[in-house]
Amino acid sequence: MSARVLLPWTDIEVPEGIEAAFYDGLGAPPPDLDAVEFYVLPYDRGPEPPKLIKELPSLRVVQSLSAGVETLVPLLPGGVRLANGRGLHDLSVAEHALALIHAAQRDLPRWFTQQTRGEWVREHTRSLADSRVLLVGYGSIGQAIERQLLAAEAVVTRVASRARPGDAVHSVAELPGLLPAADIVVLVLPDTPATRGLLGAPELAALPDDALVVNVGRGTAVRTEALLAETASGRLRAALDVTDPEPLPSDHPLWTTPGVVITPHIAGGSASFYPRAKKLAAEQLRRYVKGEELLNLVER
Amino acid sequence: MSARVLLPWTDIEVPEGIEAAFYDGLGAPPPDLDAVEFYVLPYDRGPEPPKLIKELPSLRVVQSLSAGVETLVPLLPGGVRLANGRGLHDLSVAEHALALIHAAQRDLPRWFTQQTRGEWVREHTRSLADSRVLLVGYGSIGQAIERQLLAAEAVVTRVASRARPGDAVHSVAELPGLLPAADIVVLVLPDTPATRGLLGAPELAALPDDALVVNVGRGTAVRTEALLAETASGRLRAALDVTDPEPLPSDHPLWTTPGVVITPHIAGGSASFYPRAKKLAAEQLRRYVKGEELLNLVER
Repeated sequence: MSARVLLPWTDIEVPEGIEAAFYDGLGAPPPDLDAVEFYVLPYDRGPEPPKLIKELPSLRVVQSLSAGVETLVPLLPGGVRLANGRGLHDLSVAEHALALIHAAQRDLPRWFTQQTRGEWVREHTRSLADSRVLLVGYGSIGQAIERQLLAAEAVVTRVASRARPGDAVHSVAELPGLLPAADIVVLVLPDTPATRGLLGAPELAALPDDALVVNVGRGTAVRTEALLAETASGRLRAALDVTDPEPLPSDHPLWTTPGVVITPHIAGGSASFYPRAKKLAAEQLRRYVKGEELLNLVER
Repeated sequence: MSARVLLPWTDIEVPEGIEAAFYDGLGAPPPDLDAVEFYVLPYDRGPEPPKLIKELPSLRVVQSLSAGVETLVPLLPGGVRLANGRGLHDLSVAEHALALIHAAQRDLPRWFTQQTRGEWVREHTRSLADSRVLLVGYGSIGQAIERQLLAAEAVVTRVASRARPGDAVHSVAELPGLLPAADIVVLVLPDTPATRGLLGAPELAALPDDALVVNVGRGTAVRTEALLAETASGRLRAALDVTDPEPLPSDHPLWTTPGVVITPHIAGGSASFYPRAKKLAAEQLRRYVKGEELLNLVER
C-alpha cells in the first residue's frame, strides 16, 4: 500500500485504512509519493514544500495552512483543488496585537533595558484600560482583538471596509472624523488596492499627540515615510509586526526611532496555531475520504 | 476663608463652598493649612506627604490612594479617620499581569533585543491561548485578570486562600495537586504569614517543564533562591513585577537569568489609576461634607 496522504505531523487522526506519509518541510521528502492524493503543506517552511506539488502525479487536494495562498495558485496543476488555512491564525494574531499594545502602553522595552543593567527605577506608565481604540479591520481577527480589548476595559470603535450600521461598524471612509478621538489605532487589514496607504501623512496628522499606531495586518496599510516622520518627532508612537518594506532593512531608521516597537512578522506563528491546524487537517481528511464537501476551498 | 481640604490634583470636583488647597507631593506644601480637615495624600511620592499629617491641627480624615496603609496608621493622631485606596489599582495591576504574560509567552525581550540590532529573524513562539493558567488570588484583581485571560482563550483554574466550591475556587491547600497541570501560575497575593513562601522548592518542582511563574502580588510569596535555581537551570520561566528582596539589588543573579522578565514593581502605577482615584476622592469629599458614611474606612 502506498501513502495516499502527505502530512506535516505524525500526531493527527488519519481515517481508517488510509496510509499517510510525513514531510515537515525541513528534511528531504519521503520516497514513493506517486499515490499521494491529499497534501497538507508544512507551514511557513519557505519555497521547498510548494515545489513538491509538481512531483505528485495523483494529487487531488492541496491543503495550505496559510490564510493567503496567492503564490500557490500558479503552482497547481488543473483539477487539483486548493483549501486555505483561513481562521487558523486568528487567535495568534489577535494575541500578538495585545502583546504589542501592552508593550507600548506599559513601556516594556524600557523595563527590559533596565533589567539588563540591574536597574530598579520606577515610573508610572500609560495604560490600555480607558484608552480609546480605533479597530480598523473587523473580521474574525479584529473581533478576537476586540474581545480582549473590552476585557481590559478599553473603549473600542469598529471600522471595516464597508459600514455595518447594525453592528456599529464604521466605514474606512469615516476615518478622517474618527482618528482625532483615537488614543490607539489597530490595523488588521489585508493588502489590497483599497488598503494600501490607508494611513498616510494626512491621516497620521489627524491623530492626537502621543497616539499609538499598531499594525498586525500588512505593512502596506501605513505609509512608512509618514509614520517615520511622526514618530521621529516624538509626536506619535508605533508598535508594528508588519512593515513596508519587509523584511525591514537592517539600516532602516524605523528600527531605532524612540517610541517604535517592532517584531518581525511573527503574529501568526505561535503555539495556538498548531492544535487548530491539526484539527482542520483531520476534519478535511475525514471529509475527503467520505466524499463530503471540503472546508475553506479557494476559488481559482 | 482657609482651605478645608488638601488635594493632590486641581481638576476634581470639590463641593460648593469648600475651599481646597493643592499639594502634589513634589514641591513644598502650600502655606496656611491650619483649617485642613480632609487630606488626600499624593500617591507614591515617598515619605514627605505622610509627614505633613502632623502639621494639620484640624485634620479629621486622611484619604490614602494606596491599598496597603500599614505604614500610615502609626502617623495618625487619635480621632483622625483613615480611608484607603482599595480597588483603585486593580485594573492597572491586572493589565500589567497580562503585559508580563504576553511578554514571556511571545518572547518580547528577544524581539526588542533584535530590534536594537536591526535584525529581522523570525521564529514561532509559545502562546497564551490554550495555556492552562493557575490563578492564585481571586479577589478583585484576580477576577480582572481572569476576564482578560478568558478573552484570550486561556484555560483558568481559580485558587484562593479559602475554597469557594460554588465559584469553582480551590483552596491554596490544594496547590500540590494543581501545580502539575499548570502552564502558567499567576500570583496575586498580599504579604501575610500564610502567603509567605507559598511557592518554595517543592511547589516549583511540581510545575511542569517550561512553566511560567508570574508574580504581581508581593515578592515574598515565592522563595527567591528556589525560583533562581529552577530558572537558572532553564526548567522554569518567570515574569515578576515584585521580588524578595525589593528593590532587587543590582548584582542579584535573577536580573540576568535567561527566561526571567522583571519590571520594578510598577503594576499599580498606570494611567488608569488616576480617573478612578479622582472619582473616589470627589465622592469621599461629597460624603464628608454631607455627613455621610465614608467609603474604604480602615479599622484601627
